[in-house]
Amino acid sequence: MKTMNQLLKEIRHNPLLWLLAFVPVVFVGQRLAPEAHTLLFVLSVLAIVPLAALLSHATESVAAKTGDTVGGLLNATLGNLTELVIALTALRMGQHMLVKASIAGAIVTNTLFMLGASFLLGGLKHHVQEFNVAGARVQAVQLFLATIALLVPSALSGADSVQMVAFTQTLSLCLAILLIATYCLGLLFSLGTHRELFGGTGHGEAEEAPWPMGVAVATLAAVTVLVALVSEVFVESVQEAALAFGMTQAFVGFIVVALVGAAAEMASAFSAARKNRLDLSVGIALGSAAQIALFVAPVLVLASYIIGPSPMNLQFWPGAVVMMLIATLTATLVSSGGRAAWFSGVSILVVYLIFAITLYLLPPRA
Amino acid sequence: MKTMNQLLKEIRHNPLLWLLAFVPVVFVGQRLAPEAHTLLFVLSVLAIVPLAALLSHATESVAAKTGDTVGGLLNATLGNLTELVIALTALRMGQHMLVKASIAGAIVTNTLFMLGASFLLGGLKHHVQEFNVAGARVQAVQLFLATIALLVPSALSGADSVQMVAFTQTLSLCLAILLIATYCLGLLFSLGTHRELFGGTGHGEAEEAPWPMGVAVATLAAVTVLVALVSEVFVESVQEAALAFGMTQAFVGFIVVALVGAAAEMASAFSAARKNRLDLSVGIALGSAAQIALFVAPVLVLASYIIGPSPMNLQFWPGAVVMMLIATLTATLVSSGGRAAWFSGVSILVVYLIFAITLYLLPPRA
Amino acid sequence: MKTMNQLLKEIRHNPLLWLLAFVPVVFVGQRLAPEAHTLLFVLSVLAIVPLAALLSHATESVAAKTGDTVGGLLNATLGNLTELVIALTALRMGQHMLVKASIAGAIVTNTLFMLGASFLLGGLKHHVQEFNVAGARVQAVQLFLATIALLVPSALSGADSVQMVAFTQTLSLCLAILLIATYCLGLLFSLGTHRELFGGTGHGEAEEAPWPMGVAVATLAAVTVLVALVSEVFVESVQEAALAFGMTQAFVGFIVVALVGAAAEMASAFSAARKNRLDLSVGIALGSAAQIALFVAPVLVLASYIIGPSPMNLQFWPGAVVMMLIATLTATLVSSGGRAAWFSGVSILVVYLIFAITLYLLPPRA
Repeated sequence: MKTMNQLLKEIRHNPLLWLLAFVPVVFVGQRLAPEAHTLLFVLSVLAIVPLAALLSHATESVAAKTGDTVGGLLNATLGNLTELVIALTALRMGQHMLVKASIAGAIVTNTLFMLGASFLLGGLKHHVQEFNVAGARVQAVQLFLATIALLVPSALSGADSVQMVAFTQTLSLCLAILLIATYCLGLLFSLGTHRELFGGTGHGEAEEAPWPMGVAVATLAAVTVLVALVSEVFVESVQEAALAFGMTQAFVGFIVVALVGAAAEMASAFSAARKNRLDLSVGIALGSAAQIALFVAPVLVLASYIIGPSPMNLQFWPGAVVMMLIATLTATLVSSGGRAAWFSGVSILVVYLIFAITLYLLPPRA
Repeated sequence: MKTMNQLLKEIRHNPLLWLLAFVPVVFVGQRLAPEAHTLLFVLSVLAIVPLAALLSHATESVAAKTGDTVGGLLNATLGNLTELVIALTALRMGQHMLVKASIAGAIVTNTLFMLGASFLLGGLKHHVQEFNVAGARVQAVQLFLATIALLVPSALSGADSVQMVAFTQTLSLCLAILLIATYCLGLLFSLGTHRELFGGTGHGEAEEAPWPMGVAVATLAAVTVLVALVSEVFVESVQEAALAFGMTQAFVGFIVVALVGAAAEMASAFSAARKNRLDLSVGIALGSAAQIALFVAPVLVLASYIIGPSPMNLQFWPGAVVMMLIATLTATLVSSGGRAAWFSGVSILVVYLIFAITLYLLPPRA
Repeated sequence: MKTMNQLLKEIRHNPLLWLLAFVPVVFVGQRLAPEAHTLLFVLSVLAIVPLAALLSHATESVAAKTGDTVGGLLNATLGNLTELVIALTALRMGQHMLVKASIAGAIVTNTLFMLGASFLLGGLKHHVQEFNVAGARVQAVQLFLATIALLVPSALSGADSVQMVAFTQTLSLCLAILLIATYCLGLLFSLGTHRELFGGTGHGEAEEAPWPMGVAVATLAAVTVLVALVSEVFVESVQEAALAFGMTQAFVGFIVVALVGAAAEMASAFSAARKNRLDLSVGIALGSAAQIALFVAPVLVLASYIIGPSPMNLQFWPGAVVMMLIATLTATLVSSGGRAAWFSGVSILVVYLIFAITLYLLPPRA
């Protein structure tokens, strides 16, 4: 009961969480009008956003209570839990295109939209903002190296012969294992041997009071289940809804899914930028993108062998590869300066807009 | 009459302006020998170079008299007026290939040839030269972001289906509007909210005494008309002349038109480098390239809807895209060091030479 | 006799040189079992490694005795002599694929494997290591510019028409001459006009006592002949051996030949990293890669007109181009930080592993 009370108190003070009311509405809607795809799509989006926020807060509360090392590990592993659960749902339904679009989209959205909007929102309040170049550089380099692993299978797969398909699948499996091993070594580095270099990039723990352990773990478990259930409605309705809105599937996976999945982290990044703590914003944006590339993408490849109808590879649509590479290069260039003003944000957002417009206009079968 | 006297005095002191004698020769030549394409080509090149120098001086004189903000605005808008007028003439004749080659060529020539030759000429006189990294970085990043907008339509247009052609056209129009909006925001940033960051990159105003307002405006108007008329001869003769000289059309657009159009700015950039004012040289080179990408290119797309026989898109030849991207990356890398010696210049010029040789040797229909 | 004694003394103190015993074994093996390709391949690899070490020491001894300028020139020209001799042998046999794979592989191996392993080995002993950013930047930029010359012919050669083949050949010849000219100007810069900027990147001369001039020159001549003879066995057996080991030709050229050829330099780079002299390691790795691109590759193109059955061009397999570009960008990004820890090494080695796995799995005719 105490758990329940604490949760309700939290909800009352955070307007974003009022959207939780849409969670039951989604399930009722799915029962009553299973064919109203557009409505179900909108409802599921409105329901996922507050669930992602709860998930994020629960993860941080558990992390805060378990000490630096285990906490850092939890934050690093569950930081993109919403994206992971949505992608796993799509994977189980065999929608590899949507999964890949959401991986590429999450990398692009985190590096361009989250970073750009942070710079813009921070810059509208503060004349010039500074951030730690060394920290940003480590994350940008890591992101760049991870992106390469996603580019190689796509760059090499010209012909679609049987031999090449088998090659791409084996290669993707090997790369997935290699990336996860690298991710684990990276955690050993940042939480173990060189912990002192990474001080102060906690995901806004200081912002809100952490929940007690019981509340946090229970919320984590319950909300993950809810996200999984809502994701099912979301994935089922997304394609029909895209048609109704005149959006291409690429646009939906790349832009809509990515924005929905990262909503909670964006709220933290933007709030930090307004408070002139741009280090934190840059850390959330680049760290989250690197985690998608190094951890979420390979986990999905491995998971596809277990839960999917067929194994998924890491071969992306060439346009997505170009966009990931440009996004990573942009982040590397911009973050190497150490200073930002509102126009830095505009510049990065323009790149994001270019991609969004392109995907929106792209003919369905291009 | 006073205007005329001032202008004549200027001409007497600047040997470059003696080339103005070729302006009437071009028009006489066009009347008497309309088929002598090679001769007309050479004459029109010789006539455009001094006109461009006059245009540049006139723009700066008007800018100097109208105060910082309006002056900066004028300099920023009319800085590449020669390139713009030549391209508009080609556009009116429906020569989209030539227009695009001259856009790509102007970006490559400004970033590689103008920057490289400035480093070399400055380095032959001064052992090691330093320049402001922060200023160069802002312009290099802006140039990189603008180049992306020119790459995306080209990267995506694989098939030439009717659907893709329509997509490319709509996308180009949207990107053109987006780029011009970004350009305006950039002016608001550099002339308005963050003016203090951009001190001292005036285009060599201190070098020559500004003309009185009357002379300047009259010269600006008259010379623009002359450039337009000579450009017509230039564009009409360029293709036949290219054949006669054994040059490909790509080489002419990329190298010859770009060098002719930027001659006046090059003179300023080289002179600044010799005087150990490398900040100014870097500013002219990168600023001019960024202006072509952010302002001239989208204006030409929009203008093609009004004056052209058919609307122009932003889809470039893949080789041009690779060259623009390499040029931009080279500029970013080189300018991030903040120091230059003669070999820095040689290195950049070698990249330019690689491109020039490639375009010169390229078979006509490759 | 004195020469012989000195050489024998050297061999006794350096376990690596005990492998010299394999040199006669290779020639005996070739006589007795000319069809035992796998055995001959392994023997020739074991014989080349110590010969390369001797060659490296002999070059440095001659360089140490001839003063700074001539010595620097010798070091710069003969630094990759082993790679050059192996490639010349393959060239004489008309194996252009193997030559190109070994050029691309040497660039990738030096920038990724040598640099990454140096960072890792150094980082396992020292918590954080620092190195001179300015020196690393000069070499990284030079490497980047040289790589561009290798990319352009490959990027442009879409169709395989007769016209394009002739174009690619002429272009390759022009670029080869341009690159060698740039290399000579670079030597003039680093050994002549701006010598003071490049202090202290001698290839570990301080490590071992230099040999007397007579020993050094005699060793240089004799060992070069031996490398050439062993290379012949190596090149003849490599393809059959690759089949036997289940390796693709691309893997052999890219990974095996490159590792064998650079073994001696790697020993120096790794030893420097363990001694916390990371400047030296970075200098060897990037300098060697730049030398391959700027000097060895164009020399091979020119040599193919004299000793080869047919002239070689600079058109690489697209996958190799992508790998060279990524390797160069990675080196540029990583070296611009100026600090390294063990995870920096892991990150770079992961990129190398991605390439190695890809090449190992690649179907033979892809």
